[in-house]
Amino acid sequence: MKGTMAGLVKRVPGPGSFEYRTDLPIPVIGDDEVLIKVKCTAICGTDIHIIDWDPWSQKRVRAPVVPGHETSGVIVETGKNVTDRRPGDRVSCEPHIPCGNCWFCRNGLPHICSNIRLLGVTEDGAFAEYMKIRASSTFLLDDEISFEQACLLEPMGAGVHGAEAAEPKGRIVLVSGCGPIGLAAISACKTMGATAVIACDLLEEKRSLALAMGADVFVNSAESDVIAEVMHLTNSIGADAAIDITGSGAAIRNGLKCVRAAGRFVGVGLPTKNVELDLANDLIYREIEFTGISGRRIWKTWEDFAMVMKGPYFKADLVTGNSYPLSEYEKAFAEVRTGAAGKVILCP
Amino acid sequence: MKGTMAGLVKRVPGPGSFEYRTDLPIPVIGDDEVLIKVKCTAICGTDIHIIDWDPWSQKRVRAPVVPGHETSGVIVETGKNVTDRRPGDRVSCEPHIPCGNCWFCRNGLPHICSNIRLLGVTEDGAFAEYMKIRASSTFLLDDEISFEQACLLEPMGAGVHGAEAAEPKGRIVLVSGCGPIGLAAISACKTMGATAVIACDLLEEKRSLALAMGADVFVNSAESDVIAEVMHLTNSIGADAAIDITGSGAAIRNGLKCVRAAGRFVGVGLPTKNVELDLANDLIYREIEFTGISGRRIWKTWEDFAMVMKGPYFKADLVTGNSYPLSEYEKAFAEVRTGAAGKVILCP
Amino acid sequence: MKGTMAGLVKRVPGPGSFEYRTDLPIPVIGDDEVLIKVKCTAICGTDIHIIDWDPWSQKRVRAPVVPGHETSGVIVETGKNVTDRRPGDRVSCEPHIPCGNCWFCRNGLPHICSNIRLLGVTEDGAFAEYMKIRASSTFLLDDEISFEQACLLEPMGAGVHGAEAAEPKGRIVLVSGCGPIGLAAISACKTMGATAVIACDLLEEKRSLALAMGADVFVNSAESDVIAEVMHLTNSIGADAAIDITGSGAAIRNGLKCVRAAGRFVGVGLPTKNVELDLANDLIYREIEFTGISGRRIWKTWEDFAMVMKGPYFKADLVTGNSYPLSEYEKAFAEVRTGAAGKVILCP
Amino acid sequence: MKGTMAGLVKRVPGPGSFEYRTDLPIPVIGDDEVLIKVKCTAICGTDIHIIDWDPWSQKRVRAPVVPGHETSGVIVETGKNVTDRRPGDRVSCEPHIPCGNCWFCRNGLPHICSNIRLLGVTEDGAFAEYMKIRASSTFLLDDEISFEQACLLEPMGAGVHGAEAAEPKGRIVLVSGCGPIGLAAISACKTMGATAVIACDLLEEKRSLALAMGADVFVNSAESDVIAEVMHLTNSIGADAAIDITGSGAAIRNGLKCVRAAGRFVGVGLPTKNVELDLANDLIYREIEFTGISGRRIWKTWEDFAMVMKGPYFKADLVTGNSYPLSEYEKAFAEVRTGAAGKVILCP
Repeated sequence: MKGTMAGLVKRVPGPGSFEYRTDLPIPVIGDDEVLIKVKCTAICGTDIHIIDWDPWSQKRVRAPVVPGHETSGVIVETGKNVTDRRPGDRVSCEPHIPCGNCWFCRNGLPHICSNIRLLGVTEDGAFAEYMKIRASSTFLLDDEISFEQACLLEPMGAGVHGAEAAEPKGRIVLVSGCGPIGLAAISACKTMGATAVIACDLLEEKRSLALAMGADVFVNSAESDVIAEVMHLTNSIGADAAIDITGSGAAIRNGLKCVRAAGRFVGVGLPTKNVELDLANDLIYREIEFTGISGRRIWKTWEDFAMVMKGPYFKADLVTGNSYPLSEYEKAFAEVRTGAAGKVILCP
Repeated sequence: MKGTMAGLVKRVPGPGSFEYRTDLPIPVIGDDEVLIKVKCTAICGTDIHIIDWDPWSQKRVRAPVVPGHETSGVIVETGKNVTDRRPGDRVSCEPHIPCGNCWFCRNGLPHICSNIRLLGVTEDGAFAEYMKIRASSTFLLDDEISFEQACLLEPMGAGVHGAEAAEPKGRIVLVSGCGPIGLAAISACKTMGATAVIACDLLEEKRSLALAMGADVFVNSAESDVIAEVMHLTNSIGADAAIDITGSGAAIRNGLKCVRAAGRFVGVGLPTKNVELDLANDLIYREIEFTGISGRRIWKTWEDFAMVMKGPYFKADLVTGNSYPLSEYEKAFAEVRTGAAGKVILCP
Repeated sequence: MKGTMAGLVKRVPGPGSFEYRTDLPIPVIGDDEVLIKVKCTAICGTDIHIIDWDPWSQKRVRAPVVPGHETSGVIVETGKNVTDRRPGDRVSCEPHIPCGNCWFCRNGLPHICSNIRLLGVTEDGAFAEYMKIRASSTFLLDDEISFEQACLLEPMGAGVHGAEAAEPKGRIVLVSGCGPIGLAAISACKTMGATAVIACDLLEEKRSLALAMGADVFVNSAESDVIAEVMHLTNSIGADAAIDITGSGAAIRNGLKCVRAAGRFVGVGLPTKNVELDLANDLIYREIEFTGISGRRIWKTWEDFAMVMKGPYFKADLVTGNSYPLSEYEKAFAEVRTGAAGKVILCP
Repeated sequence: MKGTMAGLVKRVPGPGSFEYRTDLPIPVIGDDEVLIKVKCTAICGTDIHIIDWDPWSQKRVRAPVVPGHETSGVIVETGKNVTDRRPGDRVSCEPHIPCGNCWFCRNGLPHICSNIRLLGVTEDGAFAEYMKIRASSTFLLDDEISFEQACLLEPMGAGVHGAEAAEPKGRIVLVSGCGPIGLAAISACKTMGATAVIACDLLEEKRSLALAMGADVFVNSAESDVIAEVMHLTNSIGADAAIDITGSGAAIRNGLKCVRAAGRFVGVGLPTKNVELDLANDLIYREIEFTGISGRRIWKTWEDFAMVMKGPYFKADLVTGNSYPLSEYEKAFAEVRTGAAGKVILCP
């Protein structure tokens, strides 16, 4: 396909908004790539960071670049080596593009590839009418998942990945933090067979969201002693696992004390500073397994999340915000900056 | 068997040495118990704590009590329900006596039983000519393991347990701290198929011990940058796993940085105060699994350690100190207090 | 508690019905035991075998014995060593009573203990007003599980154990055979997070039961080619796992062909004769893992099943038959012999 | 690099020997590929099948093709996208070239890729002075592994893969069949921490080979009852795991009976016809896990085998035969056809 298209561009390195253009060239695909007609692309905190040009962006963004990486669309063209994707296939994309050759790629851990390339950061992305990507980085959608839902697979995948790491089957799981990722974790734990999910958050308004997503109990951690509540609910044994979405040192310390000996603690939220832990009593002596998780496993987390989306607990509308045409991107970004509760989506 | 025997006793609560008596009653066994003629009992730091009556002892010791729990001997009598042990059997003992009924016992984790009883602490122990214990707490020794070696199974089992948790097969493992438990961990990792063990310690004198126990490389952490050395040795990938025996905050922080993404960190040594960690960068973002271990698994660790003892790497003489008759216990304890390098043993 | 009680007895070795007596002594408990007021005891095929005195019974039954082992009730008395059970506790029981000392017991596999004792076979059982058992063989019930449901935990536990072995989370699972155990397996797979369960059975009447228990698809294997159906439903990849409840050689051979390479096959049903397999093509070349399961894991399967019972898929009424007072046992046993669809229960 | 080279060619479909040519074009590499100066290529049974044009070859070989796939050499040229390989790197190659896109590739199982391409079968291979291959299909050799040893990594990798699947650490493992792959399995089990390896074979001449490779015991299965021997050696418990290299139905049936309940059975050898099994008693009732393995895991098995080669048990000279220059290929193939004990190697 030849011609031009509409899209956003980060033109030059440095702080500054994206630019809306209608004269961008439609990408030309390589032999292993596909061309995608973009349907929905959600706005990520990272996109804001790229506008603000924070240190992370300074090191990684290769301007000029089309931003956008939480996306879904329809394949319209395939490279000559591509045999397993066809025009018309509905897909989402894994924006972490692994090299295939480093130690991690060669050992089944491509999601933590040493030479990762990033859609919308190091490669042109999805805030545009069309995008190209390697066929092997696309995730096939079945008809039960809408394009709006599909662009949630990437940003909330960390919650599902956290649930996977908690091994929730037949277990009581504490989920600390009930933002969109925490809500995804709650619904994933329940779908994967958690005996019970205890959700906690500082905000009372999260109670109904957490319960709607499948939590069995909600504890307002601003008002109640979470450790005491968990011990009460678990017959003084403790939760089998805890998932921390908050990244708060205090929440992590409390979470560890909520977990029974030989249980699992999964860190999803990233603390912004060092955290002081009583390793002897809270972890080593009690044989707790503290696991960090990063991004999503390629493709197990995607498959699991698709299942969670189709299951009885996940409700996409509770974590989705407004949609805007691409040309109204400024309104959309403004909404994100004012703290929109759900994911804001741009539809080229 | 009736009559009296020689043994040590902690007579009354409070600081104060053990007392050597020759008029202790030989224990009378219950239906599920065995009577053991004690051959060797090693002195543990805990025994010193009991003499000094530290807070741990104040909470747990039921004086009067016969101390001693790192032991080996020969069964001389069996209770009427005991079918799988016979007089003449050579055994060691697991001094953590699980209740069999708590959640942990019921879920295959008896070594972290909630109601644990402790030989030589809550029950009469092994600094005596005879001791009794439940048959199910005895570990059968084959002829290749001497009584002197057998009383090492308990105290150094934590090193083997740490090696088990590191999953060393086909892996490069860093072991920090080359005291007896670290040396046991080194030999266990090699016996279990570690590709390479990198040992480190602040003391140069540990180099020859670590290498003799199977370490492939020794890094003097007082003189070299351990992280740089490990990165150099691993082609900048990092070690697959690290086992910390030191309990030092600095060593733990360095150890985490030595481990590759998605690797394992096993804490064996107990920090005496809180440890500050860069959880975001050193653990969560890189998906490290930080596991604490406590004591020994019943009986997998025992079986594994017996194998390690009979394998090509472990050298008992490098971690064993002098032996004394029970009556010369004061000399033996004095040697422990002055920092004997190897385990000091009392032979009733 | 002293006195007499009503109950059934197998008086003497040899074929012959149970005898209903009202003068049986109420069991006297030992220090580690509890006395249970029996509420419900389901009839098992084994009970019929004991009446008929088949070879299995000839080898194991210690007549005179009170039969009955699928049971639930209330604790009314506890032995002096029992600390974790109290009069008033509602419980079910694991009728496989492990020795605690054999290699399997010592290695976390008590459910396949070498010296297993069997409630209602080698020890007096639960077709009586009262029974005694070791406290550690009781499973605490919460209020959400009725006594009628609780006596299903043992007989249908094999289905849940099979589901555990299939590791259904995020997987497509084929369940062959939709009797009570197969239905339990279906609901367990769904509760544990199976992406989809494909149920199959030769009888069309099982369709509605399977779907009601959570199956996503039912294949009538008398009318359809199961392999072709599974391949169609899985995009020609195959199911991730299959659970065979039938024990039929043909079903096992077909089931293996339905599983994708590196998938799992779980055998629950016991074939009555040798089965011929194309090991090279159906198992080895495709790296299938064929696992047998036996009974229930103590206590993981019990905990998982309690969770399944309280979850959205399991419907106890679909697998429960009529209840009778103990004195009408002949009517109850007659109903079992004529092939009652659900479990028939005696209520002392 | 341009020019011509010497090499063998299978010219046309149908039975018929390879042809030795000196005018083959040196392969031209693509952007992701490397050019290798071949040092050693071992002869595989598959090469004989290609000459004889058996049904397997008829379906897969794309003549004209340069055969040869068990190889080692030195990289002399790299494509422009190749960043992790350099001219001068010593490498071996994985001849199974996965597609990267099928379900298996996308789920960490590239070694059983649905669209596998095969070096020396569907692509030009290694019986030539030069060969090309994707950089990501090369395995970097360190200096401790010679080119002669390196061309054993592929053909004997199945033995190491079998050992991996047996999880030998701290376990007693039976290995049935002491040809080169069985010998590799024996040494791998020992290197990975097997407590003991019991080797068996019908030929007494294998005794010294098996013991030299690390077996603790050799049982001549033509003269002794293997089951009785294993039970005697394991205190009547049975081996923890068994690895079958023979593919014989009788050996598989006996092997299953040698394994303790809840143990593992690993099938490596491929039976040439159906095998009749007593699934109920030998597998299901005793919860045995029967796993098939195929080829080698990419790259875990390669890394593990490199470790085994450098460890104390594996002796390459016991499984290596004669070497010939490429031009004397007829002599080499003749030696293979007469049943050479060790791998015969061609050195271009």
